[in-house]
Amino acid sequence: MQEELLPHIEYPIDLRKLTPDQLPYVAQELRDFVINIVATKEGHLGASLGVIELTIALHYIFNTPEDLLIWDVGHQAYPHKILTGRKKLFHTNRQLHGISGFPKRSESDYDTFGVGHSSTSISAALGMAIASKLKGDTTKQHIAVIGDASIASGMAFEGLNHAGVTDVNMLIILNDNAIGIDPSVGALKEYLTKAKVGFKPKTDNIIEALNFSYFGPIDGHDLPALLKTLEALKSIKGPKLLHIITTKGKGLKQAEENQVTYHAPGKFDASTGNLLPKENIQQPPKFQDVFGHTILELAEENEKIVGITPAMPTGSSLKYMMEAMPDRAFDVGIAEQHAVTLAAGMATQGLVPFCAIYSTFLQRAYDQIIHDVALQNLPVIFCVDRAGLVGADGATHHGVFDIAFLSCIPNMIVAAPANEIELRNILYTASLGLEHPIAIRYPRGRGTMIHWKTPMERLSIGKGSILSKKETKIAVVSTGSMTTNALEALKGINQKVNHFHFGFIKPLDHTLLKSILKNNATIITIEDGIIRGGFGSAIIDFANQYNFSSKIITLGVPDQFIHHGTIEELQEICGISVEGIQKTILRHVN
Amino acid sequence: MQEELLPHIEYPIDLRKLTPDQLPYVAQELRDFVINIVATKEGHLGASLGVIELTIALHYIFNTPEDLLIWDVGHQAYPHKILTGRKKLFHTNRQLHGISGFPKRSESDYDTFGVGHSSTSISAALGMAIASKLKGDTTKQHIAVIGDASIASGMAFEGLNHAGVTDVNMLIILNDNAIGIDPSVGALKEYLTKAKVGFKPKTDNIIEALNFSYFGPIDGHDLPALLKTLEALKSIKGPKLLHIITTKGKGLKQAEENQVTYHAPGKFDASTGNLLPKENIQQPPKFQDVFGHTILELAEENEKIVGITPAMPTGSSLKYMMEAMPDRAFDVGIAEQHAVTLAAGMATQGLVPFCAIYSTFLQRAYDQIIHDVALQNLPVIFCVDRAGLVGADGATHHGVFDIAFLSCIPNMIVAAPANEIELRNILYTASLGLEHPIAIRYPRGRGTMIHWKTPMERLSIGKGSILSKKETKIAVVSTGSMTTNALEALKGINQKVNHFHFGFIKPLDHTLLKSILKNNATIITIEDGIIRGGFGSAIIDFANQYNFSSKIITLGVPDQFIHHGTIEELQEICGISVEGIQKTILRHVN
Repeated sequence: MQEELLPHIEYPIDLRKLTPDQLPYVAQELRDFVINIVATKEGHLGASLGVIELTIALHYIFNTPEDLLIWDVGHQAYPHKILTGRKKLFHTNRQLHGISGFPKRSESDYDTFGVGHSSTSISAALGMAIASKLKGDTTKQHIAVIGDASIASGMAFEGLNHAGVTDVNMLIILNDNAIGIDPSVGALKEYLTKAKVGFKPKTDNIIEALNFSYFGPIDGHDLPALLKTLEALKSIKGPKLLHIITTKGKGLKQAEENQVTYHAPGKFDASTGNLLPKENIQQPPKFQDVFGHTILELAEENEKIVGITPAMPTGSSLKYMMEAMPDRAFDVGIAEQHAVTLAAGMATQGLVPFCAIYSTFLQRAYDQIIHDVALQNLPVIFCVDRAGLVGADGATHHGVFDIAFLSCIPNMIVAAPANEIELRNILYTASLGLEHPIAIRYPRGRGTMIHWKTPMERLSIGKGSILSKKETKIAVVSTGSMTTNALEALKGINQKVNHFHFGFIKPLDHTLLKSILKNNATIITIEDGIIRGGFGSAIIDFANQYNFSSKIITLGVPDQFIHHGTIEELQEICGISVEGIQKTILRHVN
Repeated sequence: MQEELLPHIEYPIDLRKLTPDQLPYVAQELRDFVINIVATKEGHLGASLGVIELTIALHYIFNTPEDLLIWDVGHQAYPHKILTGRKKLFHTNRQLHGISGFPKRSESDYDTFGVGHSSTSISAALGMAIASKLKGDTTKQHIAVIGDASIASGMAFEGLNHAGVTDVNMLIILNDNAIGIDPSVGALKEYLTKAKVGFKPKTDNIIEALNFSYFGPIDGHDLPALLKTLEALKSIKGPKLLHIITTKGKGLKQAEENQVTYHAPGKFDASTGNLLPKENIQQPPKFQDVFGHTILELAEENEKIVGITPAMPTGSSLKYMMEAMPDRAFDVGIAEQHAVTLAAGMATQGLVPFCAIYSTFLQRAYDQIIHDVALQNLPVIFCVDRAGLVGADGATHHGVFDIAFLSCIPNMIVAAPANEIELRNILYTASLGLEHPIAIRYPRGRGTMIHWKTPMERLSIGKGSILSKKETKIAVVSTGSMTTNALEALKGINQKVNHFHFGFIKPLDHTLLKSILKNNATIITIEDGIIRGGFGSAIIDFANQYNFSSKIITLGVPDQFIHHGTIEELQEICGISVEGIQKTILRHVN
């Protein structure tokens, strides 16, 4: 029996001591290592299994970390982490104080650029390559590994368009597996699909048109071919692109066959690959499913309704509508800018577009929200999923800025429903036609209600709710799903506290707010967004404007980036967990 | 002598009564009309002169406004406005209460989509085309006219990538004149440059690779060719692109020869085309020139300094550095997202990147600022030009959101110098190396100082200034160039008022602020940004947090979109002109 090799590899320098014919054994061990740990600790599986050979080849051929290697998005970076000093820490992946699920500069010199959002790698690598050129370093290599879904995003095109007129030493590896989280879409994807190993579709391909030297396509699981090609590319100057064809989930049958499910499968049986059977308990729905099922229900009644997602049919649950009404629900790929202006164009023609985008990715379309939607006051409905702290994905993915960056835009309505029923009702209300664009923010994960498919009611825009009113001078004013935390917090302490829920952050309910400010000396606001420019801040502004002197305590995300952990742990860090809220209330109750 | 035709044309319906051989005369008259009015009223000249023939042909062949026509950016839409009911109003172009310098939905049914920022037209037209398809309308045409600089922006690529997998009825006209405001750059531009009238560079061109039917290139000033081609394209189904070659400034010799200058030449002699001689008075510099000259001065001393502009070498004045140090100053084209992440990549390698972007266009790179720069705490220096109200360009171009959208980001320093010397000093201070990214915001137009090239001084980050301290309980706290307005306002009224300048919006000067709040019962804050989430709002939050009860009045841009006019007129509307500030002070002084 072959002696195991991986136990002797901590860093790429150890890998480079092996002979090329030993590397396939390393690949097998590395694949097993990833599978075994992700099976119990969870995380992103499929993307990493697809680049096992590539990762080994890159660290074997190139002199990392002197040569600079950037993984686009970073879902696929687990084997990279394991081979660059983090094998023993890998079981802490995505846990509080553990290693990050994405490359992160503060974690390792081998993580040359922090990633999480897609399509940044070409720009970053080009910046590094230009820096090397200015320093007179002609030997350093700059390598960006980017998938076929990510290279189709506008930002990647901007990077290619610039790189193509430089003479820097830069290698882009196009990891073409025809899938992002969901299957890739778009004209570029169709074009790339024509490429097969050993067959380049046309001599004048789109990459060469942008002044890149094009190599491939080659089989990205063929280690000898990878080694040979990468070695040869070292000496080729200027911007160049190597097209490799890989299989997402490679080496685990179920992951290869069910690529969407096995992108991040949760716990599974490492030996069989089977997902662990789900407990047969009726659970409250995920908020994304409340959106996904409700939009379909609404669209069946109103033919003007259309749905748009930038590359997240599964994650946003727009897939239900896409399956039932393929003509009216659109996956536009990783193209948030386009998604928003497409929705604006549709709205000019009287359609009712629901544009579902995660809060953190909505940052990509900020200008389009201002310039194409809000300025023209077009009634686009933004379904802002994953708002608030998202847990294990960490700092790159928290949806904590949207309250601040949306509330400052004229014409925008910003809604933050407390629970499944309120989300359903605001979706219904928006579908009836509003005079303004609206952003409806809701969190990652499940709600609290088993029976949420109640008859829908039209909500009054900007109206808050009185949850409990007592003989006391202290009030909690919460918004969005923080109202659930606040309710639980209040239940657990035996104190007289008024409680109000604001389902609308903008416009604020002026009448209710005046009455709250008049009758309460102490007000605790609670939101799961950044405090600066947020919900509590708007209430303080209002109090100042109308000369109220209540003491206002604003709970929310402080002025710092929050890293990864469970949602509960991170809420605890910010003081907005149930316990954190209780502490603040008790501190002020007397 | 031929009778004049233009006087009889108010709408396209009038144009369509003419015979094709009359159209070249309309073109000549329309060109003269544009030249005559822009010569005295100012505005964007070159782009409009380049599309005279195209505009006539489009409105002649297509059934506007039933057929939907979108002009990308909109600089080129003057002939469109003149032929669609606004000929008699054209002399009010860009003036307060006059017509907008850009297409605007509220102005005309022929303006199907409001524009100003580039590269939105493909997404918007696609949204409209999909809407028509869903409605079962198979005859309506959807046309986007986009320039070669704008089509190279990532957002345009996202639109093409989606459109290419649809079967909607959509025509993109690529108006290729090899220049945006400054000459176009990038690999795509080099590729397009190979195309000449009658010669398509390669059969498998980049457009066809994206599933578009490609037509052209044809001469965009050849009316018969345009008419014939557009007529033929009407009956071709699916997404198609017509490539036309035009000359920016066509028909005015000086404008053709000096395309950058004649993009928006200011006043000129309509008969000769000569610019009016400038008055020989020594004027204070434009803020952009303070930046442009200072970065060059700093870069001469520090070889780590690099400069980046997305397509605004002239507008940002980075051109001085680009001319002197072409290896270290980069025009990356209309690619704000790429520009920011490129800067981040450079910063990881120890370079000191100055990234100069107009405030309104920085909205395009919001995610990159958060995700690639601030989260990694990379010391990128953002030079945020055109901050505040910009005047005649109007609602699409005001830089009024940056304080709100930048201040909520952890790690960011937000500076707003009062004048040329302070701008110079903060540029110098940033160049010495900061521990955080910094955004330095400064306005459009000129400062107030003739002698601004004083020796540079290092500023203390976060430190405010006492401008005047008196025996009184009322204070003005101003930031950025609003401090100049405030100084003038105070000079004009004989009142005891304390005055403080905050050159840093984030971090705030806590020590100074506590002293101000302690000693003043009334505080008037002044900024030229949106009030929600802005500078004054941060001061109110601070006062609440530290239990100060001063009455705080926040002057700034209210929660509405501000349209076009002179900067002074718009500041007056917002109450932040000199007179507006005086009124507020006088209202509170007793």
